[in-house]
Amino acid sequence: MKIKGKQWRALWFENGELKLIDQRKLPYNLEIFTAKNVEDCAFAIKEMVVRGAPAIGAAAVYGMVLGKDNIKYTAEILRKTRPTANDLFFAIDYMIEKIKNGENELNAANEYVEDIINRCRRIGENGDKIIKDGMKILTHCNAGALATVDYGTALATIRIAHEKGKKIFVYADETRPRLQGLLTDWELEEEKIPHAVIADNAAGYFMKNGEIDMVITGADRIAKNGDFANKIGTYEKAVIAKENNIPFYVAAPISTFDKSIEDGSQIKIEERDRKELAVINEKTIMPEWTKVRNPAFDVTPSKYVTGYITEEKIIEKLIEL
Amino acid sequence: MKIKGKQWRALWFENGELKLIDQRKLPYNLEIFTAKNVEDCAFAIKEMVVRGAPAIGAAAVYGMVLGKDNIKYTAEILRKTRPTANDLFFAIDYMIEKIKNGENELNAANEYVEDIINRCRRIGENGDKIIKDGMKILTHCNAGALATVDYGTALATIRIAHEKGKKIFVYADETRPRLQGLLTDWELEEEKIPHAVIADNAAGYFMKNGEIDMVITGADRIAKNGDFANKIGTYEKAVIAKENNIPFYVAAPISTFDKSIEDGSQIKIEERDRKELAVINEKTIMPEWTKVRNPAFDVTPSKYVTGYITEEKIIEKLIEL
Repeated sequence: MKIKGKQWRALWFENGELKLIDQRKLPYNLEIFTAKNVEDCAFAIKEMVVRGAPAIGAAAVYGMVLGKDNIKYTAEILRKTRPTANDLFFAIDYMIEKIKNGENELNAANEYVEDIINRCRRIGENGDKIIKDGMKILTHCNAGALATVDYGTALATIRIAHEKGKKIFVYADETRPRLQGLLTDWELEEEKIPHAVIADNAAGYFMKNGEIDMVITGADRIAKNGDFANKIGTYEKAVIAKENNIPFYVAAPISTFDKSIEDGSQIKIEERDRKELAVINEKTIMPEWTKVRNPAFDVTPSKYVTGYITEEKIIEKLIEL
Repeated sequence: MKIKGKQWRALWFENGELKLIDQRKLPYNLEIFTAKNVEDCAFAIKEMVVRGAPAIGAAAVYGMVLGKDNIKYTAEILRKTRPTANDLFFAIDYMIEKIKNGENELNAANEYVEDIINRCRRIGENGDKIIKDGMKILTHCNAGALATVDYGTALATIRIAHEKGKKIFVYADETRPRLQGLLTDWELEEEKIPHAVIADNAAGYFMKNGEIDMVITGADRIAKNGDFANKIGTYEKAVIAKENNIPFYVAAPISTFDKSIEDGSQIKIEERDRKELAVINEKTIMPEWTKVRNPAFDVTPSKYVTGYITEEKIIEKLIEL
């Protein structure tokens, strides 16, 4: 991804330490968080210094490098950080396998991350095939470079389409409670892709008024039947897209597909802290007394999905899964 | 409505001045805004010191009292304040008629406001008939006493059901961009009605998971065919309610029905200032560069509505409109 015209990644390994763009500080400040040990890495995942399923996977492989002296313990504390993203568990198992086979941990981790980036680029290229010049595209949350080390998933398709000279316009849901839409806004602004941020409530308005031609989101976990978990609110957008005959695509690498679960009902949904709703950038926006419910994800049944944009191909029929 | 156990109204006329609870300061501070002339009153409506269709109507009748020496000018500046709420225009026309007939302005205005309150109480009583003990009800925005001088429309049904001893639980959408859900939270908290605030994105999650039995919202304007304008996001909730076979009711007085418009396509939607999204309680939450689109309302087609709870009856069939 470009930041002030230079190429960046959301995280990288340097001199025995994991460096991460601190996503809690964006879009206001570009600060680097350093993880010197596996506990730091677990903190970074849990507290959302890093977020987005593929980027969590990337952080986890480097976490395994940081904690290579006690793999069992390391795997255990990393597994406990976030329950929803399949990539986390996929990445940990990948590293365990590599280490068991006697491979160098850092090489294995670097290969994993380069592989993610290549896959994201290919997701972008596949997605670009269905994006037409002039299209207005809605996205929810941040499925961008920040969420995947580089390119993104949903945003990879938009980046590549833009790179190829297509004139597109992006509506970015602000994505309460955590306002990850502002990360999308930041990425699109840095890449000079025309866009606007909207209240999550307004997505339906623009869909109904014919101002949105396609919806593309990422996914945190996709079940065997195509049901998928993603940021809270994705389900709402998918239902409304279908109601308005707007194609709804999920952009995700194959690693996000979890063939061990039959359908969405088996996906565990995290309810997160009250303060995610009540506090924005350390500013309290709700009174002390306000009680909240705060599910972080929802599950969208596959019947609302037009297709899954993967690095291999666009899967339009569930049978192919 | 009760505030700290005492009876209050959202606005009242006292010693030649219009007094309004300043809703821009809630839920944190209970401050009274005084309108000494029609310009003050127009400011209060435009800047949302007072909001909610029936309360805007109530403010407008007192605005006509304040500006009674030049009725044409007064009506003109009041009409320009907000475009969506039918009650505003209804209230101005009502006062013009009364004044033409030589009635005392203040008496006419007081009658109008007492009438609103009575109608809201009756809306509550009618709505209570369909609320079952144990129900979990979702509401969007604030269709409460603040929005209608007293009782509310959607919240009137909840108040009366609670008054009658029914155990209910209310999910209040936070209602971005302006977070009117916090006004609902404040009203419910003062009345000790169990509830939780949720991100607008989470409403679909709770509906899909069977945690919401009914949706009740207010309306700003209802067309002849039952299509209605209400706070942005209402359309999304209505579509998702239908998708999940959850009854969706609109609570509104007859004055909200605008028989001069055939359907929702004729309702003008206000796009409001960027700062509504970017600033919360004078705290900036979005970067300078962030561009937004900010429609304040949306139109929900009548096919998503189970019924209209009015002061006269619950209208279940559109033909009755």
